[in-house]
Amino acid sequence: MKVTVYNENVHEKVDPTVRSVHPEGLHGTIAGILRDEETEVRTVTLDMPECGLTDEVLDDTDVLVWWGHMAHGDVPDEVIDRVQRHILAGMGLIVLHSGHHSKIFRRMLGTTCNLKWRDGARERLWVIKPNHPIAQGVPETFALDCEEMYGEPFDIAEPDEVILLGWFNGGEVFRSGCTWVRGNGKIFYLQPGHETNRSYYNENIRRIIKNAVKWACPINKNLPLICPCTEPLE
Amino acid sequence: MKVTVYNENVHEKVDPTVRSVHPEGLHGTIAGILRDEETEVRTVTLDMPECGLTDEVLDDTDVLVWWGHMAHGDVPDEVIDRVQRHILAGMGLIVLHSGHHSKIFRRMLGTTCNLKWRDGARERLWVIKPNHPIAQGVPETFALDCEEMYGEPFDIAEPDEVILLGWFNGGEVFRSGCTWVRGNGKIFYLQPGHETNRSYYNENIRRIIKNAVKWACPINKNLPLICPCTEPLE
Amino acid sequence: MKVTVYNENVHEKVDPTVRSVHPEGLHGTIAGILRDEETEVRTVTLDMPECGLTDEVLDDTDVLVWWGHMAHGDVPDEVIDRVQRHILAGMGLIVLHSGHHSKIFRRMLGTTCNLKWRDGARERLWVIKPNHPIAQGVPETFALDCEEMYGEPFDIAEPDEVILLGWFNGGEVFRSGCTWVRGNGKIFYLQPGHETNRSYYNENIRRIIKNAVKWACPINKNLPLICPCTEPLE
Amino acid sequence: MKVTVYNENVHEKVDPTVRSVHPEGLHGTIAGILRDEETEVRTVTLDMPECGLTDEVLDDTDVLVWWGHMAHGDVPDEVIDRVQRHILAGMGLIVLHSGHHSKIFRRMLGTTCNLKWRDGARERLWVIKPNHPIAQGVPETFALDCEEMYGEPFDIAEPDEVILLGWFNGGEVFRSGCTWVRGNGKIFYLQPGHETNRSYYNENIRRIIKNAVKWACPINKNLPLICPCTEPLE
Repeated sequence: MKVTVYNENVHEKVDPTVRSVHPEGLHGTIAGILRDEETEVRTVTLDMPECGLTDEVLDDTDVLVWWGHMAHGDVPDEVIDRVQRHILAGMGLIVLHSGHHSKIFRRMLGTTCNLKWRDGARERLWVIKPNHPIAQGVPETFALDCEEMYGEPFDIAEPDEVILLGWFNGGEVFRSGCTWVRGNGKIFYLQPGHETNRSYYNENIRRIIKNAVKWACPINKNLPLICPCTEPLE
Repeated sequence: MKVTVYNENVHEKVDPTVRSVHPEGLHGTIAGILRDEETEVRTVTLDMPECGLTDEVLDDTDVLVWWGHMAHGDVPDEVIDRVQRHILAGMGLIVLHSGHHSKIFRRMLGTTCNLKWRDGARERLWVIKPNHPIAQGVPETFALDCEEMYGEPFDIAEPDEVILLGWFNGGEVFRSGCTWVRGNGKIFYLQPGHETNRSYYNENIRRIIKNAVKWACPINKNLPLICPCTEPLE
Repeated sequence: MKVTVYNENVHEKVDPTVRSVHPEGLHGTIAGILRDEETEVRTVTLDMPECGLTDEVLDDTDVLVWWGHMAHGDVPDEVIDRVQRHILAGMGLIVLHSGHHSKIFRRMLGTTCNLKWRDGARERLWVIKPNHPIAQGVPETFALDCEEMYGEPFDIAEPDEVILLGWFNGGEVFRSGCTWVRGNGKIFYLQPGHETNRSYYNENIRRIIKNAVKWACPINKNLPLICPCTEPLE
Repeated sequence: MKVTVYNENVHEKVDPTVRSVHPEGLHGTIAGILRDEETEVRTVTLDMPECGLTDEVLDDTDVLVWWGHMAHGDVPDEVIDRVQRHILAGMGLIVLHSGHHSKIFRRMLGTTCNLKWRDGARERLWVIKPNHPIAQGVPETFALDCEEMYGEPFDIAEPDEVILLGWFNGGEVFRSGCTWVRGNGKIFYLQPGHETNRSYYNENIRRIIKNAVKWACPINKNLPLICPCTEPLE
């Protein structure tokens, strides 16, 4: 399996706290979760030509993982058009945390992906589909001592599956792990992962991300997107 | 619209607290929410012949509301068979609180409808589909000072729609308002309503129940349930 | 209820057959289906400033009906951005036939909306959700002697509900009537309606369109689209 | 993976045509599709004690495949209760053709599972989710020269996924391949497979059945079904 991790890599340059939590950047932390004998991981960042997301790279990607926040608007629309085409042609997409407002996630869902938010909450996650491959090996419930609160209503297209619900100490709830299919591509959104928090070092979050990438890996990719005039078959 | 409210009416006979909260029984309290110029409400209880749920009554019912808890097992299977047939033929069904374990709810969903529970929690409800008819006039969030905690995982068939999510002060979350269609009938489950709590006097809960009954009212009911051998049409 | 019918009105200007089937344009035919005592209908066309779809018009629209084909690309992206915002804020959207490839439908679903097609087929439609408001008064099955075949696979986001399935004499099948919710807005797609065919004069198709507009009429519209930082509630 | 194939094995005893198509019984034909190096297959029939579906057998079964028709009513309710518990605890279930009216399928879905039917039709199947594991290696469309027509409306609980649509030469359409999750168990229904037809020798149907069993194989099985009173976590 070939995975590409996109990170805008902007917080890391301006905020020493982020750099201390993610010494190799968020892309480095995330790539570290995924890399194993069966998984080849490439990282790309906003400052690369075409954000590193050329047709050549995407043709060679089974699953794209996306972390962005401050600089969503700096990703050119042409790059988003291209990524969308690859997803519809079969590539998987994992969107993390503040990626809820990324152009690509909003493009795929058709909605604002707005939500409520507040820094520095305590979160408790609940697995509500225990036999889903994304939940494999994850306990029924676990807590994150410090994470950004994301609260409902979350303006998303109806998920195909809600795997995780989030509880926050301020009284909020959230659909924290959701799946969709768009075209031939599988999409998973995972809510935790604020840049100054340590959720990506939590073993359960790591397991979920690893499982999700495996789940989103396509049977077929680079499929043609066509709208043909066809002869009768009967 | 014609509504029938079923209540097992058992707690009321043995627990003075329940009687003090519901002087006319839970069926009386619930009927009081629903009765208006356009809605004729009949109440039936477990101790009536056939639980009051004869074909005659069900033929004349648009929506059946169900409250039960201690005595689920005392409802004869023949009554459940009959109620199921009427739902599949178009009658709406609203299942309240501990009705999650009623024979009729488990029959319609095919699952155990198990959950976690604990008396005496604080609950906060969130509307996640604000433009759904069941949420009309209900604020985005509101709290119930004392309600029984029902927690995930809730073993239900995948809902068609999740309208309400519940947050509990003990760290739990719940799909507190869900819809399904089965055959021609519409089903809504609402989590609050423990027998010793006052949720059915909360104006938002009352609004939700009123809206749900309206939503579940069928276009057609008493439809035939057939499996015909048919001639080719083309 | 206030309905706005958008028609690109291009075929009508170049093809006498279309003009003979739709003497007042496709927008005129469709408006004629919808206009009644409770429904105020406005028509707009591509050649009007901003396609007639200004904020003023959309603020005053409960449901927008869309017919387009040849000139999808001529609708400016700014108009599509605006229409999308109004849908997410509550406005209903009914997309007809070749509107499957309109910018607005693809924007809302996130997919190509590709399909198979061929002129001059015989179609038979089947209602698979007989108790849905959009199917009210529509028989279980009915035929259209001449309609454009649209065949699966139809590259759409998973519908919330499939109300109609289409059968074609060439061996194809299609999800011919589907619903989605996006933000606060309800969306319905209906497959029949090729510009040279007479489907919009078929009483069942007329009934479906009328029902769909009623179904898509919002409880609330012009809702704010916000992503607020909020204080703890508990 | 361990698979158990249930076949009522009644047609085989009374109809020489069925015996000639399925010399080792329908269970023999179906087991022949599934048996390979990674899959251990056991067959059970109605005339065995407890239909061969004891707790011991079910504890040791990952996926149960079900073919029945004439003798649905002869399967004792106790056996169905037990099979349902095992599905909810994680075991997969594949229901074939006339199994739509089996007690276990109706139990899991809560509906009549009624449909239209007629012997001796020509069917064409369409894959509408080409990137689903159940469709892996199956062409977009293929025909069965002779199969029993099953037509909509099909009275089933809303499927989680519709993978296959069926077209019939008499003008009918059908949701011919559907999935559901109930509890921890995954369920797939496949429409072709009339006892006197040769669909189970069609390479695409064989592929679909093989894929479906793999898809339905649980991550965890024999999970406890509990409804616990729990202490607060926060």
